Amino acid sequence: MENEKRELTRRSFLTSGAIAAGTIAVSGGLFGALNLNRKSKAEAAQVPKYPWPYVRLDTEKAKVLGYEGYMKKQCCYGAFDAVMDQLREKVGYPYTVVPSDIMVWGGTGGAGWATLCGALIGAATAINFTVGNKSDVNKLINELFGWYTTFPFPEYMPPAGKAGKVEGKLPTSVAGSVLCHASVSTWCATSKYRAEGRERSERCGRLTADVSAKTVQLLNDFHTNKFAPVFENTEAVEDCMTCHGKGGTLENTRGKMDCIQCHDDVDPKNLIDHIKQQWQIK
Amino acid sequence: MENEKRELTRRSFLTSGAIAAGTIAVSGGLFGALNLNRKSKAEAAQVPKYPWPYVRLDTEKAKVLGYEGYMKKQCCYGAFDAVMDQLREKVGYPYTVVPSDIMVWGGTGGAGWATLCGALIGAATAINFTVGNKSDVNKLINELFGWYTTFPFPEYMPPAGKAGKVEGKLPTSVAGSVLCHASVSTWCATSKYRAEGRERSERCGRLTADVSAKTVQLLNDFHTNKFAPVFENTEAVEDCMTCHGKGGTLENTRGKMDCIQCHDDVDPKNLIDHIKQQWQIK
Repeated sequence: MENEKRELTRRSFLTSGAIAAGTIAVSGGLFGALNLNRKSKAEAAQVPKYPWPYVRLDTEKAKVLGYEGYMKKQCCYGAFDAVMDQLREKVGYPYTVVPSDIMVWGGTGGAGWATLCGALIGAATAINFTVGNKSDVNKLINELFGWYTTFPFPEYMPPAGKAGKVEGKLPTSVAGSVLCHASVSTWCATSKYRAEGRERSERCGRLTADVSAKTVQLLNDFHTNKFAPVFENTEAVEDCMTCHGKGGTLENTRGKMDCIQCHDDVDPKNLIDHIKQQWQIK
Repeated sequence: MENEKRELTRRSFLTSGAIAAGTIAVSGGLFGALNLNRKSKAEAAQVPKYPWPYVRLDTEKAKVLGYEGYMKKQCCYGAFDAVMDQLREKVGYPYTVVPSDIMVWGGTGGAGWATLCGALIGAATAINFTVGNKSDVNKLINELFGWYTTFPFPEYMPPAGKAGKVEGKLPTSVAGSVLCHASVSTWCATSKYRAEGRERSERCGRLTADVSAKTVQLLNDFHTNKFAPVFENTEAVEDCMTCHGKGGTLENTRGKMDCIQCHDDVDPKNLIDHIKQQWQIK
């Protein structure tokens, strides 16, 4: 499947795929008008082959699209559009059918809830359009998420005079988390800027550019068999999950978010105190 | 825009929309073969009108699709497919172009990271396909997320003999959070089942059914102008955000996740101690 997809050139995809899809769409329309309650074979065949084709994209262009997308419709739209808009341009159909507006919801970490950073929601969804194998998807997203937790955002600088909210350099911070809530709080603590101010918004625009470029780099590497993950779980995740994770004596949770951002740190040489504390034993 | 969309019947959409799209796809293909590096007008016009049309869907069918989808490809795929598969069936194009596989990434709260519950990621994305106005999207998702934090999952019961993992009743728990990590941990604490065991997996399959039905109910209500939100922020969010949220004296964070699941509870009548603790003043 993967090899087949890589061998599929844009030319052959457009000439065979799009014409076929066109014919079918016409049939689907006529069938639809005649028989509204039955899914016709033509309609079923209208589904393009999945995963959708990928061609090498430009990381610098991704930064600009991600940043500009953020300024239009926030982080999730921006990072999604940074990949999808390039694919619409370079591949065309079926990418042209899907508007980036479908991912506006992820802005502010999901309708103001500040959960998973919206740039990551958009990026992960874009990745999944072009990578079909679940294990591969998880590896790429694990690398993207891991990188995000350690990267001093923001790096991207818009050209002078072209900033969406605030010109000039901004303080950087490492979030240590993939959550919007923690990412924004950490940056506010470092920068002393307000969470809903123009500087924070500018920071998130530039972060969207950084996430967009990283996503395109990961996809370029993956689709040319050059993807080599480097992220390793934090020490806390490794330590805590020995007991709390899969196969552990407790096995009462899951995840890769750094445990000690929300839970008290534990001395692995003094687990007795930790257990006593958890069970409120004096 | 909203009214226009609601007035668009399936018949008129299929006969005009799909035939137009078909014609354009053929043109796009020929153009593409002749001129690979230029986005033709035909390709640009191939974008279906957004938001995509919605017709009343079946909440009971959503439960079955969500549950079965979970058993095939986890929670995010399941909740997304519960809406999208019905729309593929009832509306056809353009829903037929987008496979539910694009949302597999959200399973286990995003590639094993246990961030935002994958069923909510899938549901929110499906909502956004059919609702274009950002304020409306946010209202619907806020209601869905809020409901999720208070609902004793799981409610859905597969027919006897048809369970994907484990037959019979399961213990229920209220997550108090939209995060997979907290949702699973809370259920494990209540049920005493293991986080990666068959019972927990069955619970998440049924939770996916519950989220799918709620999503369809919200969409049905919204598209018939009957949507009436009931969720209110938790007391902690209201109290803490007075100082820490938008417009507060500190304004150093954002979000609606219940603060006291990760932070120490604060007595609003004794803020001095809280401030001393935060600044490590003795």
